[in-house]
Amino acid sequence: MTESVDRKTAVARLRAAQDILILCHKNPDGDTIGCAGALYLALKTLGKNVSVLCSDPVPALYDFMELRWFDASYEPAFVVAVDVASIQLFGDRNNVQKYAEHVQLCIDHHASNSGYAYETLLDPGAAAASELMIDIIEEMGVSITADIAACLYTGIATDTGCFRFSNTTAKTHLAAARVIEAGANVETLNARLFESRSRARLEIERMALESLEYFFDGRCAMIYLTWDQIVTSGVPGAELEDLTSLPRSIEGVEVGLTLRQQKDGSYKISVRTAGTVDACAIARHLGGGGHSRAAGCEISGNLDSARYAVLEEVRKELERWGLLSDKQL
Amino acid sequence: MTESVDRKTAVARLRAAQDILILCHKNPDGDTIGCAGALYLALKTLGKNVSVLCSDPVPALYDFMELRWFDASYEPAFVVAVDVASIQLFGDRNNVQKYAEHVQLCIDHHASNSGYAYETLLDPGAAAASELMIDIIEEMGVSITADIAACLYTGIATDTGCFRFSNTTAKTHLAAARVIEAGANVETLNARLFESRSRARLEIERMALESLEYFFDGRCAMIYLTWDQIVTSGVPGAELEDLTSLPRSIEGVEVGLTLRQQKDGSYKISVRTAGTVDACAIARHLGGGGHSRAAGCEISGNLDSARYAVLEEVRKELERWGLLSDKQL
Repeated sequence: MTESVDRKTAVARLRAAQDILILCHKNPDGDTIGCAGALYLALKTLGKNVSVLCSDPVPALYDFMELRWFDASYEPAFVVAVDVASIQLFGDRNNVQKYAEHVQLCIDHHASNSGYAYETLLDPGAAAASELMIDIIEEMGVSITADIAACLYTGIATDTGCFRFSNTTAKTHLAAARVIEAGANVETLNARLFESRSRARLEIERMALESLEYFFDGRCAMIYLTWDQIVTSGVPGAELEDLTSLPRSIEGVEVGLTLRQQKDGSYKISVRTAGTVDACAIARHLGGGGHSRAAGCEISGNLDSARYAVLEEVRKELERWGLLSDKQL
Repeated sequence: MTESVDRKTAVARLRAAQDILILCHKNPDGDTIGCAGALYLALKTLGKNVSVLCSDPVPALYDFMELRWFDASYEPAFVVAVDVASIQLFGDRNNVQKYAEHVQLCIDHHASNSGYAYETLLDPGAAAASELMIDIIEEMGVSITADIAACLYTGIATDTGCFRFSNTTAKTHLAAARVIEAGANVETLNARLFESRSRARLEIERMALESLEYFFDGRCAMIYLTWDQIVTSGVPGAELEDLTSLPRSIEGVEVGLTLRQQKDGSYKISVRTAGTVDACAIARHLGGGGHSRAAGCEISGNLDSARYAVLEEVRKELERWGLLSDKQL
């Protein structure tokens, strides 16, 4: 089991170390990369050898950070993981598992952190690991340059959907203010992180909107995509995942359903709900599960039978909350 | 001409006044309504009679603020305008012009403020008038309740596109932190303000995506909507306006064009650009104008001739910046 450490101890470990390897999680997002970038630059300022390793390639969105990437010539003596909640999340490419089992220090904000590292600095109240990283860097005695600030802003802004998600706190905004004062350019960074959509993304959105249907007086909205459409659009998995929030985002919709055909012809169904309606109850009756606002399940068979099965569960759940009009009962 | 006043003087005027009328701008947005709501509640705490007046109905999005709306029985002795840059922007319904010409105090953040009020408190560096209002309310000696905080958060968040637009500063985030600490519920407010789209909006987005075309190796993207489509969708003007940012938001696009047919058959063209490309240069050659990133013009004639005319100007502007490949020259 891991030892919990406070910020002072974590910083003492980093200051005492020399040849440092920073590990990110697989399918890297702005927070793990932003944290790694900021910590890399701060440690370089202190005259350390530092290198960064990730199982998967870094999305072009984040390639403005100039890091030294790990190669076989580098021999780390101290391994620190940033924003990685469990050992499985390191991924399995680039020989990352060799180091994943010997992480000396983990800096994270996931309440679910499994405690795989020797020592862990965990703040589950932080919206992003980058929010934590600001205090760590200042505690190190390194002043936050514009480059470090850009990394930290990237982490904070992406993990909060640009301060929109419910994990955003007053502390998150204070952290944003600090990195903007330190030189993070909001205009450039936000344009890069939030204002650009791929052609593939727009193409799949068009297909999704064409399939949009409403049920139960507009309380339920459904989109569906065939396997062919998904492959033809060339949209990456993460952007496809984003699309599942679309039907629920429509005015008056309590249950948003996204049906995605899989390669074997079965349908993966994402259920998103508002208010009191329980997404998990709907998914559970179809053999799936999840949380109260976001859940999922899979149904084999054709589109019609999948639609029928899920709409029947939606009807029951809406009825349970008195959200059906008389004629639908 | 108006007299510029500082915060202390503005607060002294409000404290000395008794029967106060707060005026909003027409087509009210979150900032003018949020400011009015916060100021209304603060003045009520001080035992004043207060009423709020707006030329147009308040969108349902903001109807959580419980204000006393102006009616003919109310006789104001002091008129204060919030977030209103010029006298034309008061609109002309609800008898608002009767008061618009006698505004004692204007609180605003638009650099373009025309100085129509007797006294003006202007901070063009503030992202929202609500950012200013926080300091005013604290200067009044009124503590920011959760209800006041919700109004102020609404103003700040809507005027910055939830902290995404380039007007967002460190000070904006500090203001957000203050109102969240004072009890503004980020989860509820953001869900209300940013996570709901009308069915009409999605319908017009679908039509726009169906019309999407790329030109000049993907450096230009164009969408177009016929008058019939606009009327059929029933989408309100403000949401239609939002759509003009869509083509420019696509990866690799330097010039985004939106062609909207008008009732008389002519085309209103919105030009949005990235990087160095000058939107105003494109629009100016077609008899329009605007800013370097956002401009517009109108072209009579059918869709084909409008397309041809604007694409020709786009070609010239891209060529000027060396953004055309050889085969397009």
